[in-house]
Order: sequence, then structure tokens, then C-alpha cells
Amino acid sequence: MKYEPLSIKQKFTKFTDIFQPKVIAKMNDYEFKLARAKGDFVWHSHADTDEVFLIIEGQLRIDFRDGSVTLGPGEMFVVPRGKEHKPFAAEECKLMLIEPAGVVNSGDVRGGLTAPTDVWI
Amino acid sequence: MKYEPLSIKQKFTKFTDIFQPKVIAKMNDYEFKLARAKGDFVWHSHADTDEVFLIIEGQLRIDFRDGSVTLGPGEMFVVPRGKEHKPFAAEECKLMLIEPAGVVNSGDVRGGLTAPTDVWI
Repeated sequence: MKYEPLSIKQKFTKFTDIFQPKVIAKMNDYEFKLARAKGDFVWHSHADTDEVFLIIEGQLRIDFRDGSVTLGPGEMFVVPRGKEHKPFAAEECKLMLIEPAGVVNSGDVRGGLTAPTDVWI
Repeated sequence: MKYEPLSIKQKFTKFTDIFQPKVIAKMNDYEFKLARAKGDFVWHSHADTDEVFLIIEGQLRIDFRDGSVTLGPGEMFVVPRGKEHKPFAAEECKLMLIEPAGVVNSGDVRGGLTAPTDVWI
């Protein structure tokens, strides 16, 4: 049987929209999603789950109410459940999100940046 | 408050042993582990969980009973639960494993390559 590697770089060629996570893989009930970030996302939190950000290209700042962290390529951060955060990217940033299937990108907040879940590429 | 990015590259400077996964982060009850692979690992499977391999540097071949997949940097693969597999690296390979906390590297098999779980760096 032929097995194919899953190339993160190749998957990024399949979409250009901003703050619209795309699922590329599932492990048990968790999903691996790719997203492009640019500008300000909204303040939000996820009451029921931690959320992992892993930067592929560019820089992402994650603001918290009491500080911030700036991530570059090959750097990651676990945002704890319930912690308010707001991603920001001055220039377009490519990142991977790892979290349970079905998590909404804007958490407890709904608005123009809320994306549909479980969109596979 | 000061938040620090988690640098995969920097974490790899903290160990040199082969086939001995080190935990660098936890998300809910899942762990992110770094490992160095070189040579043949053992045939094994994980009855209760899928397992994600993400290659950081070098190449890893994962053999299955009915084929294989070869992964390079920025490529990943989800080994389904219960599927027998045997990682192999001709030259040293740096990789990330993502799976539930407590998963033993050699799955259903115990031997010289079985590593302790939950070793953090």
C-alpha cells in the first residue's frame, strides 16, 4: 500500500484566507489545523480546552490580559484553557493549531472573524 | 507577567540520546515530545491511540507491514491506533511526537529501546 507524507508547506498552497483554520489531520479526537494570521484577531478564550500554537513561518504575538508572548518559526505555546488571548501578526504568519475537534477559533466570542469548524484541505 | 516561547530547536540542545522521547509541553492530557531517531526502532503498535510524527530535521521512514512512508522536515504522519509500525532513520533524525500522556514509545513491546515516559526537559 502507498502511504503519503502530509506536507505542511504543500497544504499552505491550498488556501490564502486569513484567520480561517483548515484541518489537515486528525489524531483520536484532536485536530491539526493550519491557519494564516494577519492583523488583530479578537479577544477570546476556550473554557474547555488548552490550545497549542506552533509557528511555521513569520511571527505571531499572543496578547494576554497580563502580558504577551511573541513566537517565531519552530516556536510553540500552549494557551491554557480559560485564558483570554488575542493573536496578532504585523505581517502574515503561517501557523499550526492543535486542539480538540470542533473547537471554534473565536472561542466564547462570535463575530466576523468566527470561522466554520472542521473544514478540511 | 513574562511568557516565554517554547523553542523546539533550543530544546533539542538539551539531550542527545536516541529513541528516548522527552516531553516539552502538555495540552489537556496530550503530550508533545521530542526525540532523536537513528537506525531501526522495534516493530510495535499502540492499541489505544493514534500517534503523530512531525519531522523537524532529517528523514524518517516508517515501515508498516504493507508499505512504508518516508518523511522529511515539515512533514507529518498519523499512525492509526493498532497499526504495527517500525521507525527507521539512516542518519540521525529529529522529530516531534504528539500523543496522549503516558504512551510508551515501544507500545505493546518491551525491550532495550523501551524508554521511560513523562521525562520532561
